[in-house]
Amino acid sequence: MIFPFTAIVDQDEMKLALILNVIDPNIGGVLIMGEKGTAKSTAVRALADLLPEIDVVKGCRFNCAPEGPFCSDCIEKLNKNGSIEIEKKKMRVVELPLGVTEDRVVGTLDIEYAIKKGEKRFEPGILAEANRNFLYIDEVNLLEDHIVDLLLDSAAMGVNTVEREGISFIHPAKFILVGTMNPEEGELRPQLLDRFGLCVQVNSLTDKNLRIEVLKRKAEFDDNPEEFFKKWDSEQQILVRKIIKAKENLKNIKIDDSALSFVVDITCQLNLDGHRADIVMLKAARAFAAFNGKNGITQEDIKAVAPFTLRHRLKRLPFEDISQEVDKLNAILETI
Amino acid sequence: MIFPFTAIVDQDEMKLALILNVIDPNIGGVLIMGEKGTAKSTAVRALADLLPEIDVVKGCRFNCAPEGPFCSDCIEKLNKNGSIEIEKKKMRVVELPLGVTEDRVVGTLDIEYAIKKGEKRFEPGILAEANRNFLYIDEVNLLEDHIVDLLLDSAAMGVNTVEREGISFIHPAKFILVGTMNPEEGELRPQLLDRFGLCVQVNSLTDKNLRIEVLKRKAEFDDNPEEFFKKWDSEQQILVRKIIKAKENLKNIKIDDSALSFVVDITCQLNLDGHRADIVMLKAARAFAAFNGKNGITQEDIKAVAPFTLRHRLKRLPFEDISQEVDKLNAILETI
Amino acid sequence: MIFPFTAIVDQDEMKLALILNVIDPNIGGVLIMGEKGTAKSTAVRALADLLPEIDVVKGCRFNCAPEGPFCSDCIEKLNKNGSIEIEKKKMRVVELPLGVTEDRVVGTLDIEYAIKKGEKRFEPGILAEANRNFLYIDEVNLLEDHIVDLLLDSAAMGVNTVEREGISFIHPAKFILVGTMNPEEGELRPQLLDRFGLCVQVNSLTDKNLRIEVLKRKAEFDDNPEEFFKKWDSEQQILVRKIIKAKENLKNIKIDDSALSFVVDITCQLNLDGHRADIVMLKAARAFAAFNGKNGITQEDIKAVAPFTLRHRLKRLPFEDISQEVDKLNAILETI
Amino acid sequence: MIFPFTAIVDQDEMKLALILNVIDPNIGGVLIMGEKGTAKSTAVRALADLLPEIDVVKGCRFNCAPEGPFCSDCIEKLNKNGSIEIEKKKMRVVELPLGVTEDRVVGTLDIEYAIKKGEKRFEPGILAEANRNFLYIDEVNLLEDHIVDLLLDSAAMGVNTVEREGISFIHPAKFILVGTMNPEEGELRPQLLDRFGLCVQVNSLTDKNLRIEVLKRKAEFDDNPEEFFKKWDSEQQILVRKIIKAKENLKNIKIDDSALSFVVDITCQLNLDGHRADIVMLKAARAFAAFNGKNGITQEDIKAVAPFTLRHRLKRLPFEDISQEVDKLNAILETI
Amino acid sequence: MIFPFTAIVDQDEMKLALILNVIDPNIGGVLIMGEKGTAKSTAVRALADLLPEIDVVKGCRFNCAPEGPFCSDCIEKLNKNGSIEIEKKKMRVVELPLGVTEDRVVGTLDIEYAIKKGEKRFEPGILAEANRNFLYIDEVNLLEDHIVDLLLDSAAMGVNTVEREGISFIHPAKFILVGTMNPEEGELRPQLLDRFGLCVQVNSLTDKNLRIEVLKRKAEFDDNPEEFFKKWDSEQQILVRKIIKAKENLKNIKIDDSALSFVVDITCQLNLDGHRADIVMLKAARAFAAFNGKNGITQEDIKAVAPFTLRHRLKRLPFEDISQEVDKLNAILETI
Amino acid sequence: MIFPFTAIVDQDEMKLALILNVIDPNIGGVLIMGEKGTAKSTAVRALADLLPEIDVVKGCRFNCAPEGPFCSDCIEKLNKNGSIEIEKKKMRVVELPLGVTEDRVVGTLDIEYAIKKGEKRFEPGILAEANRNFLYIDEVNLLEDHIVDLLLDSAAMGVNTVEREGISFIHPAKFILVGTMNPEEGELRPQLLDRFGLCVQVNSLTDKNLRIEVLKRKAEFDDNPEEFFKKWDSEQQILVRKIIKAKENLKNIKIDDSALSFVVDITCQLNLDGHRADIVMLKAARAFAAFNGKNGITQEDIKAVAPFTLRHRLKRLPFEDISQEVDKLNAILETI
Repeated sequence: MIFPFTAIVDQDEMKLALILNVIDPNIGGVLIMGEKGTAKSTAVRALADLLPEIDVVKGCRFNCAPEGPFCSDCIEKLNKNGSIEIEKKKMRVVELPLGVTEDRVVGTLDIEYAIKKGEKRFEPGILAEANRNFLYIDEVNLLEDHIVDLLLDSAAMGVNTVEREGISFIHPAKFILVGTMNPEEGELRPQLLDRFGLCVQVNSLTDKNLRIEVLKRKAEFDDNPEEFFKKWDSEQQILVRKIIKAKENLKNIKIDDSALSFVVDITCQLNLDGHRADIVMLKAARAFAAFNGKNGITQEDIKAVAPFTLRHRLKRLPFEDISQEVDKLNAILETI
Repeated sequence: MIFPFTAIVDQDEMKLALILNVIDPNIGGVLIMGEKGTAKSTAVRALADLLPEIDVVKGCRFNCAPEGPFCSDCIEKLNKNGSIEIEKKKMRVVELPLGVTEDRVVGTLDIEYAIKKGEKRFEPGILAEANRNFLYIDEVNLLEDHIVDLLLDSAAMGVNTVEREGISFIHPAKFILVGTMNPEEGELRPQLLDRFGLCVQVNSLTDKNLRIEVLKRKAEFDDNPEEFFKKWDSEQQILVRKIIKAKENLKNIKIDDSALSFVVDITCQLNLDGHRADIVMLKAARAFAAFNGKNGITQEDIKAVAPFTLRHRLKRLPFEDISQEVDKLNAILETI
Repeated sequence: MIFPFTAIVDQDEMKLALILNVIDPNIGGVLIMGEKGTAKSTAVRALADLLPEIDVVKGCRFNCAPEGPFCSDCIEKLNKNGSIEIEKKKMRVVELPLGVTEDRVVGTLDIEYAIKKGEKRFEPGILAEANRNFLYIDEVNLLEDHIVDLLLDSAAMGVNTVEREGISFIHPAKFILVGTMNPEEGELRPQLLDRFGLCVQVNSLTDKNLRIEVLKRKAEFDDNPEEFFKKWDSEQQILVRKIIKAKENLKNIKIDDSALSFVVDITCQLNLDGHRADIVMLKAARAFAAFNGKNGITQEDIKAVAPFTLRHRLKRLPFEDISQEVDKLNAILETI
Repeated sequence: MIFPFTAIVDQDEMKLALILNVIDPNIGGVLIMGEKGTAKSTAVRALADLLPEIDVVKGCRFNCAPEGPFCSDCIEKLNKNGSIEIEKKKMRVVELPLGVTEDRVVGTLDIEYAIKKGEKRFEPGILAEANRNFLYIDEVNLLEDHIVDLLLDSAAMGVNTVEREGISFIHPAKFILVGTMNPEEGELRPQLLDRFGLCVQVNSLTDKNLRIEVLKRKAEFDDNPEEFFKKWDSEQQILVRKIIKAKENLKNIKIDDSALSFVVDITCQLNLDGHRADIVMLKAARAFAAFNGKNGITQEDIKAVAPFTLRHRLKRLPFEDISQEVDKLNAILETI
Repeated sequence: MIFPFTAIVDQDEMKLALILNVIDPNIGGVLIMGEKGTAKSTAVRALADLLPEIDVVKGCRFNCAPEGPFCSDCIEKLNKNGSIEIEKKKMRVVELPLGVTEDRVVGTLDIEYAIKKGEKRFEPGILAEANRNFLYIDEVNLLEDHIVDLLLDSAAMGVNTVEREGISFIHPAKFILVGTMNPEEGELRPQLLDRFGLCVQVNSLTDKNLRIEVLKRKAEFDDNPEEFFKKWDSEQQILVRKIIKAKENLKNIKIDDSALSFVVDITCQLNLDGHRADIVMLKAARAFAAFNGKNGITQEDIKAVAPFTLRHRLKRLPFEDISQEVDKLNAILETI
Repeated sequence: MIFPFTAIVDQDEMKLALILNVIDPNIGGVLIMGEKGTAKSTAVRALADLLPEIDVVKGCRFNCAPEGPFCSDCIEKLNKNGSIEIEKKKMRVVELPLGVTEDRVVGTLDIEYAIKKGEKRFEPGILAEANRNFLYIDEVNLLEDHIVDLLLDSAAMGVNTVEREGISFIHPAKFILVGTMNPEEGELRPQLLDRFGLCVQVNSLTDKNLRIEVLKRKAEFDDNPEEFFKKWDSEQQILVRKIIKAKENLKNIKIDDSALSFVVDITCQLNLDGHRADIVMLKAARAFAAFNGKNGITQEDIKAVAPFTLRHRLKRLPFEDISQEVDKLNAILETI
């Protein structure tokens, strides 16, 4: 049993960034920076637990969506039967272990099957497990670079194409990537930072009353989780309905030229590499508008999500602290 | 034959921290810091030896408790038979060898079984052996980080979920984690320090009479362990009954607002990362109250366990000695 | 569905260099230097997507061209049947994963086949997949040197000869090699730089209107790729016809002595190692002339491609910036 | 044929320390520090060769003693037959090769047996070979730490418990551990130093007559070992009888309070970590008394063995030579 | 189709050194030092292509010469049949891949054959492929030392004796070793330098007319290799006949005392390690005389080859440039 | 065909040291220090080639001597048949490849035999091949320490005992160890230096006439080895008879007290670790006397071999050159 998402005290930035990614998975994941012991892992698991079951092709090892795109197995099945059956599945938080190998991420030949049946079959990897789920990487800065590359590539393409050991297999691999890092324990290459859609900062609470509230809720939950869950059930239901509605409404929100222009006004004032910030900011603003039940994107929507979008893409001068950059960013946002 | 726990001379802090974890395993383990040759390993083994046998599902490779939670095997058995049989087992101290691999910790595919029977079966790892036992890691600071991570994650979740090589297996993995380290031989990352519930310091005795007593008891025990054991039997029985009673009484102890507030009063005065200290201090205080046969938590209970809870979470300035921090901590505890 | 090549805003250098390699694959590939997030990968995939299907020997695992050269399998087939069948295939972008091993690049013994059928068979590697396709290496400066060597050797020879584990196999391995690197993340040995035919620089756009255009097209494409594609279809058709015509016309373009002399006039004024720049410059100028529908090479054609040919072959003094070299180069090109 | 123990010229400290461990294996081994070419290895082999055969369970792969403790195999045999047979075996010097793996030390699954018979069987490791023998580690400071840990743990516990690859096996593993090191070639961690019972220093002889004697005996032995052996036979017999008698008498020697107090008087004046020195000194003194045919421990017995017990446990200040410490130790021993 | 050897512009030193090794393979190979892009690899392949086919024992996996020495297989065949059949084979350039293992160089047990036929058979390695061919190592300074050792040993002995995994096999392994290195990318140990017979330096051409010629010929060849080859055919034929004649005449050339004395006159004036330079210089001079159709060795023949023989054996002072040494060498050669 | 030992020009020290080891293999091998290209390897091979065939047990894989000691196989054969047959074998020079593994040195389980026959059999390693042969290690200072240790241990014990993978095997492993090193390429640990019996220095010849002689003989040999061999046959026969006689006479040479005393007189004046120098000097002097046909050891015999025995055992002060030590040694030898 998992702690209810809505019962997490404070940490609104992190909660919002996660929700925006649920609304529009094309935003490209969240990097959570912060100290230990600040409920990062709990928040992701709690959000996954909150969300309704999704429709998947019955028996599909890759959680293919009934409307596609499909994996090689489903395509074969469709060609043979003309139709597919549907089942419901809970979303999961797939965790990437440190020290994982490329084989386990991408999938590989199923040796046992090959030996016993004399046929080659694809053994799904973590990218398969993660399809349409959350992929959680704790301390992403400690992971080997080429694994991070693999994951971010896959997250960007939404597809895992395997051509090895005589197997040819393709399956969708779209997931919400959540990474955490403690900047005190090592940096992440700018190349990789840039490929996380959003970035939020979490800190431990310093307000005494909030701290007591955290402690009280945790103690309550530990001693009797079922009862605690009941207490928070209505708040959970309100949130889940709000998210579902936002997802449905997303594509109906208009992107007019003033929104485009406002986004570029911001990014042109900063010294950023490439164009990824522009597109992410636009999408996050749209998801934010949808979450708030609106039909169009205002400058306020863009300003609200700009910090999450830009914080990790700012170029830091040597010896300059990240907080200075954030100050600059805020100054720009206010003057626009 | 193991040296009797109650015959260990002095070292009260270490003995208490171990006992509190037995009373409430949710406290999250003990990190014992200290010099070589101070009976750390003996204490853990002696305590395990002292405790009564526990009820486990008969034949279960994971020591499942008859009241659950259950491993995949027990669930299958329950579904099939509707009931399970029970047997008694002694608690063990499972030791984690240095240089252990992830496979051995988590468990893996049973290759031999697969070859001989043509079926996949889960080969339990150290997390399985450790379930409902002690897991002892000597010189935890010399262990590879990703293994420590694995263990602490599992200790926190209480469950080991394995999804690899085509096996899908889940089993409970709740254990009392005891790590030792000699700070002269290398630090532990603050991330990891934080995840040990308690931390105690042991030193060799300098009082001459105590030293003679240690030597005398050890020589006596080595020459005739059976007789020595008989001599200490009644003290052992008293202690074991006290622990059992405390365990039974634990959930009946009230956590009132003044206790919550007092805990946060302490932690707010210190510069700590995250909220883990708060909840551990509260639980340790409750276990301490239970051990002393009380029904509620007093400020004295909290003060008694605060040093174990906070010592390893204090932030050290460079060149500052740990004893200075402990002084600060004691000053705070006194002024509250 | 891939973003249309012609809809990529600006970045004309990169687009031209890729097109020249399609017209004459003997130019020897492109190295793209530049920041993250500048559509490098998109451009290569979009170009491959744009190009028409090619004729290959039906069922050939190596994409052999119907006019040869042939792989060992096709030669055997020809000897047996006297003729081969043809099928159409789309060109692919084969991506080289970081951390790839020599075995996977070159191909190896097909163990499974050997075990099941008792016969040795060649298991094709990435060089086989890449034949007559694009081979894309992201962050080529992070790849191990001996793998880069292997690829560049094969790119130069156009053939992969395998003599190992008792297998003797030969297959054509001609591909358009595209590497990217961010010079901030490490250098490439001059030996390797020299073996990329061309080198271009990409930067993110700073013009606000262009940026808005990039953002607009991307958002449009993401929301409705099919419609976006239709909108750009005629531009795509124009380009593809221009490329096909240039390919057909290539060998008809005369190389007269004045062109030879002009090329050497340039290279003699620079301090270059070896003669590779001369031959690449000549070929790129010819491809450029063909792309523009001409019948001969003018000094302007040579000047147009000289920067791509020379930029990465200039010797840099310590502490000298690459832009200074490029200035020198431009000065030389103007004074000739 | 091995050089006779009694014919080794001088080196009395080393010879005594080895003999004391034979009399009471609980002393915990010897660490021999010294230059190359000083007969360290010869001494151990010669002593093993000198000792009488021991009784072992017939056919037991672990040299189980007929009076126990027993290995898993012997326990099974006893349960089945009710009794065991006995055979005689010579003690061996098992040498630990540098670069040995954990598997070979601890033992592992017997793969061949598993394949051929379809049953899991334990393949004994070096700890099994070493049971009731000498375990000799040349240049222990060059061994990997976790292997040294394994050995010292096993030496301390006297038991090797194996739980891996689905095998569950236990066997006694009590041996006399002899390590050598040349301090010029690297230190040993204090943690490990402390776990060797005794420590002696050997040097090459500088007295000319002794050197001639060494040379003469070696030349004599090399040219005609049988004759040389006969010449030393009676001295060998005297020593072996003295050792056997001491072993039999060991437990009869009284440990009175004055001995305990005298031991602690010494250790309290030194800055030692932990209590291991106390118990080792007491046991070594008792073995020394037994070797000299006495019934109680005198202060002289303690003084005689104190240097072996304390030398490697003294804390050295940086830049302080070991000889200075030994001077301090001698001063203390004299003033008591 | 390979570029004709005689059409390579300039680079006379390199071409001569290769030819001398073809005339007398006992000279011991060539080390080519120089920049990238200077046709080193082309020259070796072109020379191999130029040479006539050689007689080999029919079906022999080791290219045994019909007059011997023979491999173990041929010896067996001879013993059985009393005679062997002959076939013609083109000489090959066997390339040594970077990162090659000892097994692949030396050859090993043919596992597949052993499994299928139950018999041990030798699986030839690169030394077998290289027998009577060229062995080409690009960037020999980047190869692991023990592999270089293996190759140079084999080149010196002319035989590969394999005694491993229960196989006993011997086969001739005489080849012309050609290594290249760019001194800017790392040195080669003097031990290894010394074991290359000759050493030449190549540079890119700086004369404009020569550069144009290079470019012209390459462009001509690339566009129509067959025609280009025809154009150069007569020059190719002249050279190949000259080489064949020199090979036949080699042993007839007299080595008189004045030649011996002149060689030693040179080497005694230089500070060289060992005597290898003397014998190589003598042999290279003889091959040079043979190439020029003479019957005896003159001082001019010796002077002509001395630089190739000595350049890499001169001892360099720290910070001294190799060109200074060559100056010294030239001064000596002139004054003699 | 190998160059005749007696035709090697000069290098008397090296030749003598090798011969002394042949006369008395207990001397413990030779370490040859010197530059490249000084016929070190040739000398060893030439000496092995010169020596007469030895008697071995027919079919024995370990070259057991007919008079013992025997390997496990021969012991079994003797027990079964009561007798063994004899065959003649040429002595070999077994070369130790760099990068060799412990398994290949010591021998291991014959996997193939186990699989095919279902029986464990010992697969001999290099120690088995080397028994009663020369073991040649080129550049011993580049070998891994633990392999050197293994070899030197085995050389000292004369026996290889294997207890691994369930095999129990013992075979004699007595060989003449010859190592070479170039001190410019790295030192050898004093521990290892000490265990080579003798040490000689070789240099290239600087006398012009000797150099011409070397060159002449090599050229003669290369062009017609058979004839060259005939020319040197009588010198070869004389040497071989002298060596055989010395071997037979060795044990008859008296070792009187004055010889013992003279040896120790020398070693006591030097600061040596351990006693190995004494015994080696005595044995080398005896072999030297035998080689010269004498019946006793004179001071001159000892002086003649002392430099070989002591050179590598002298302790060098930092920055002190080895030639200074040798000067000291010579001074001592003269003053005695």
